[in-house]
Amino acid sequence: MISVGVIGYGYWGPNLVRNFMEAPGSTVVSVSDLSPSRLAELKNRYPSVKTNQNYEELLGDPAIDAIAIATPVTSHFGLAMHALQSGKHVMVEKPLTATSEQGEQLIQEADARNLVLMVDHTFVYTGAVRKIRELVAGNALGEIYYYDSVRVNLGLFQHDVNVVWDLAVHDLAILDFVLPFKPVAVSATGIGHIPGQPENIAYITLFFADSQIAHVHVNWLAPVKVRRTLIGGNEKMIVYDDLEPSEKIKIYDKGVTVSHQAEAVYELLVGYRSGDMWAPKLDNTEALRTEAMHFVDCIENNKCPLSDGCAGLRIVRLLEAAEESIRARGQLIEIGN
Amino acid sequence: MISVGVIGYGYWGPNLVRNFMEAPGSTVVSVSDLSPSRLAELKNRYPSVKTNQNYEELLGDPAIDAIAIATPVTSHFGLAMHALQSGKHVMVEKPLTATSEQGEQLIQEADARNLVLMVDHTFVYTGAVRKIRELVAGNALGEIYYYDSVRVNLGLFQHDVNVVWDLAVHDLAILDFVLPFKPVAVSATGIGHIPGQPENIAYITLFFADSQIAHVHVNWLAPVKVRRTLIGGNEKMIVYDDLEPSEKIKIYDKGVTVSHQAEAVYELLVGYRSGDMWAPKLDNTEALRTEAMHFVDCIENNKCPLSDGCAGLRIVRLLEAAEESIRARGQLIEIGN
Amino acid sequence: MISVGVIGYGYWGPNLVRNFMEAPGSTVVSVSDLSPSRLAELKNRYPSVKTNQNYEELLGDPAIDAIAIATPVTSHFGLAMHALQSGKHVMVEKPLTATSEQGEQLIQEADARNLVLMVDHTFVYTGAVRKIRELVAGNALGEIYYYDSVRVNLGLFQHDVNVVWDLAVHDLAILDFVLPFKPVAVSATGIGHIPGQPENIAYITLFFADSQIAHVHVNWLAPVKVRRTLIGGNEKMIVYDDLEPSEKIKIYDKGVTVSHQAEAVYELLVGYRSGDMWAPKLDNTEALRTEAMHFVDCIENNKCPLSDGCAGLRIVRLLEAAEESIRARGQLIEIGN
Amino acid sequence: MISVGVIGYGYWGPNLVRNFMEAPGSTVVSVSDLSPSRLAELKNRYPSVKTNQNYEELLGDPAIDAIAIATPVTSHFGLAMHALQSGKHVMVEKPLTATSEQGEQLIQEADARNLVLMVDHTFVYTGAVRKIRELVAGNALGEIYYYDSVRVNLGLFQHDVNVVWDLAVHDLAILDFVLPFKPVAVSATGIGHIPGQPENIAYITLFFADSQIAHVHVNWLAPVKVRRTLIGGNEKMIVYDDLEPSEKIKIYDKGVTVSHQAEAVYELLVGYRSGDMWAPKLDNTEALRTEAMHFVDCIENNKCPLSDGCAGLRIVRLLEAAEESIRARGQLIEIGN
Repeated sequence: MISVGVIGYGYWGPNLVRNFMEAPGSTVVSVSDLSPSRLAELKNRYPSVKTNQNYEELLGDPAIDAIAIATPVTSHFGLAMHALQSGKHVMVEKPLTATSEQGEQLIQEADARNLVLMVDHTFVYTGAVRKIRELVAGNALGEIYYYDSVRVNLGLFQHDVNVVWDLAVHDLAILDFVLPFKPVAVSATGIGHIPGQPENIAYITLFFADSQIAHVHVNWLAPVKVRRTLIGGNEKMIVYDDLEPSEKIKIYDKGVTVSHQAEAVYELLVGYRSGDMWAPKLDNTEALRTEAMHFVDCIENNKCPLSDGCAGLRIVRLLEAAEESIRARGQLIEIGN
Repeated sequence: MISVGVIGYGYWGPNLVRNFMEAPGSTVVSVSDLSPSRLAELKNRYPSVKTNQNYEELLGDPAIDAIAIATPVTSHFGLAMHALQSGKHVMVEKPLTATSEQGEQLIQEADARNLVLMVDHTFVYTGAVRKIRELVAGNALGEIYYYDSVRVNLGLFQHDVNVVWDLAVHDLAILDFVLPFKPVAVSATGIGHIPGQPENIAYITLFFADSQIAHVHVNWLAPVKVRRTLIGGNEKMIVYDDLEPSEKIKIYDKGVTVSHQAEAVYELLVGYRSGDMWAPKLDNTEALRTEAMHFVDCIENNKCPLSDGCAGLRIVRLLEAAEESIRARGQLIEIGN
Repeated sequence: MISVGVIGYGYWGPNLVRNFMEAPGSTVVSVSDLSPSRLAELKNRYPSVKTNQNYEELLGDPAIDAIAIATPVTSHFGLAMHALQSGKHVMVEKPLTATSEQGEQLIQEADARNLVLMVDHTFVYTGAVRKIRELVAGNALGEIYYYDSVRVNLGLFQHDVNVVWDLAVHDLAILDFVLPFKPVAVSATGIGHIPGQPENIAYITLFFADSQIAHVHVNWLAPVKVRRTLIGGNEKMIVYDDLEPSEKIKIYDKGVTVSHQAEAVYELLVGYRSGDMWAPKLDNTEALRTEAMHFVDCIENNKCPLSDGCAGLRIVRLLEAAEESIRARGQLIEIGN
Repeated sequence: MISVGVIGYGYWGPNLVRNFMEAPGSTVVSVSDLSPSRLAELKNRYPSVKTNQNYEELLGDPAIDAIAIATPVTSHFGLAMHALQSGKHVMVEKPLTATSEQGEQLIQEADARNLVLMVDHTFVYTGAVRKIRELVAGNALGEIYYYDSVRVNLGLFQHDVNVVWDLAVHDLAILDFVLPFKPVAVSATGIGHIPGQPENIAYITLFFADSQIAHVHVNWLAPVKVRRTLIGGNEKMIVYDDLEPSEKIKIYDKGVTVSHQAEAVYELLVGYRSGDMWAPKLDNTEALRTEAMHFVDCIENNKCPLSDGCAGLRIVRLLEAAEESIRARGQLIEIGN
């Protein structure tokens, strides 16, 4: 049984507490938050859990094996580093850190101490995204051409991050998880419309070593909610609509046909073909439940998480590059390694 | 009664012939195409219309007032220039020309001869787009923040142009028509997946003098058809879905609210509000019918068309800039005037 | 502050407990259920609430003002009658009782003791249904022609009731609430496909004194979930889709036009017209919260609930008539009063 | 080459002419209509086709092999009988005749003369409906439980028939074609809202020898267009949405599971299971083209059409029974044979 301490009981913290409480193999023993009213609310629902406003008490508690952090991004590094240095396994809310340098240091620290460092890329643990990865890995789409995602809605502006760090982080984590190749460069554009506030709309193109392309469109000011990803291959194509209640993934047997007839030179050489569509049944387990159990499994069996520190770092590097490109109005930024 | 000669009876030509035949105030007297079988098909449907394979016969026919051109893009300039020099009013299929230089020359020639030069930006004449222009002009959205359009499907590859010149031209013509400001720079990305073929996917960001932004996403290799435009303002937002059978335009009374309370510094300063949605009844007249009548009206009353040569030229300049930026992987390209 | 005791902590009971706990003006002091494990679950979430397996303890507790009952239908009458006789105000899960006779007795008992008797017709308290009632009452639709509802999905079979008593009860309660006239006769059909199980599909037509008609279609064995109601009037029509995340109600300015020209005898005399569509903003308060507060208000201020015993009884009479008609394969059954 | 004469060039006639003109194996030689302006319109499009206002000229023309009739329902019998008596093969617009007696006489006449008599049940020739029949025949759904269809929109009122004869005829023809059993009784309800006009809304339940059920809902006064059929089996279920542009048929691997455990007596005995969804590619050939070719094939090879006179008669009997039941407010009407 892994005993978890949770730091931060704001928007996402209650989900962490509930899942670590209910997942087999883990329990929550202590929760820290700066707000007494948030802690009172927790106490009402989970009277057995200890609460305090000083997170250091959790780090000093030898009964706690692991720390889950759900606080604003800028505090991730300090809290996670302190937790690792206190010998605790760590799960951090996405994005892993506010800079790639911080991410590198966390990875080093966790490696040196042989502790599990995991970033909460929640979508990676959904039935839908796991199925997409399985399909891509099994070569169901043929050669991958593009990955195109739209994630827009009328959302709350975040204090400390722009729409890229708040929303695009999900798409970047998903494509990092499902695609068999990594981006090498970024060109992005975006803008902020509310004076004094960060960018609320952004468009990010990712380039790869070969002729693949990926694009992520995020917007906090859209009148309708859209969560749709297209993945095109030369044999099949996927539409992943996260707002669909049941058939979230549809696989289309569609593609182009290229004619090589010399005499067809005055004809269209590229046609298209269209076949069946198929929506596989998906595992409906709550993603965070799967993820909590995976964290416990990694701790107990000394495994590397699917969303380990390196995955977290790769995404932070993409976020940094995207932001740099946005500031330079689309200028191409190479991705560092 | 305006007598029209049509050059090109391939994909779009039959629509031009039908509309100029049926619209009050115009008739089609002659059609030219290189293909005898296409001409035979025309003859079967319209036995009264003269046909020939040599377009010059149309230009030399004094009974013809105006020429409508529906041929591949590279031939637009030569045919239109010849028609103007023969004293004919001209309507050219979109895009106006293959280069902005060609567009400038056509405008000069038409001006010098006091002839009507019109480009067939069909969407500009739909009930939906005219309503959007009316709403924007009437300040119904408040301050405009962004214009975002997706136009993707599994489409036939064109021989002579890429997806930008084939599909994005529609979106650029629409936004040029409805927005009260003009783009000043472009950053675009895109790629071709079929060897030997042009780009089949592209993402175009347009910048304006102020903090507006526009984005156009086009794709010939998508498994589903999407034709959706979002236009966001600080007071209202529009969703224009051209695939909706009836309510193509929805106006959402949604937006953000900005708090200026000093004491709210630790709170979210930007909230959002949500009100009614409204879908106005639209004029369902076929766009090309409206356009044909407008062309006739411009000829008879010496008016300047809504989609005149200058509008056509502005779009060609955007297409050139987008293509240049795509080749340079997102590099910012200023729009010339 | 009204102190509530809840009998039944199965599927719906937790929602009652949560809402009476969180609504201003009420609190839950005691919960009874036959299952110790259900009570343990409650105790974990609400340690302050008393639990017991014998509901009579709640009835004998002078600290309890009102009883909310969420048990199988056949037990409604016995529990509610006992609660009323113990001097408690009563809210009963829908349908009010298993027979109209039982409903009549409960109404008499509550009247005699001047206690509030309310049936939990939850939909009546949603923002959507309240808006429909407001529109109909304000004559926004003109003369009402029809009410047509579809409520189908792949659902769990109930032990003690068929799909009419389980699902159609919602539609009957809604139409009873929003329509300005009451049904006078029923013709219904339906069938059970699983041996030993009750009807899982049913179609119910309601007739009124004038030429209105209503129809309810319910099905436990549908592959997709549908919750859609059409209400047609001679001036406007409503589409109420409860699965829409935001625009649940759409009002169409559509209808027919009748020509009275004598000379038009060989023409179509009935045409149709189509205007704007409008989706009003709805109150998003959880229906059960609104309902809990309404129950408290009725108790404290001696008011009659919107969904009082008489409303509950009217619905039970319709359910009985529908069931009788189904058994007789569509035979017309008059509604008793 | 079969030479066809077409009687009636109103709403549907032009589709018949176009398809018999373009289908291999047939041509249209003559068209009759009472309206000179309709005939002029035809002449403009098909100058080679003869026209006349007197249909008897077609019947007397020895060059004509077959007659296609697209006139108001009440005239079907007279025209078809006259055509058969003139030795012509006959295709009649749906419904076959205005009464079942008339249908019986036509069948007798065609049999006696060994002529093809076909009713234009167009949907039966669509790729979607043919695929459904193939799936049902191949036992893909397991045991069929129900057939449920909704066909509503804001439609033009017909002069001579009510909504049942105008719209429900399509659903009845489809279910007659795809289901492996025939209805034995009908209970239907419906009403007319426009004074002096026939029923504009109707609900028809069909009973079968076993525990299957079918239901058809038609409405001329709906604010939205719906064309959706659910077919439920114990192993799989179909959703057929004719308004979907591409995936018109979806097959859901969903159903119920029945537990036979004695000890589960207090548990739910019926659960449900959910698997993949699949949308097969459909043949997109225009239904009327397929049908025209089938008519020609039946004439040339002395075959019985899929939609022969007997199919037409079965549908007329259902329409008569439904109408009789509507007049009697749902009374059960046995289907005659």
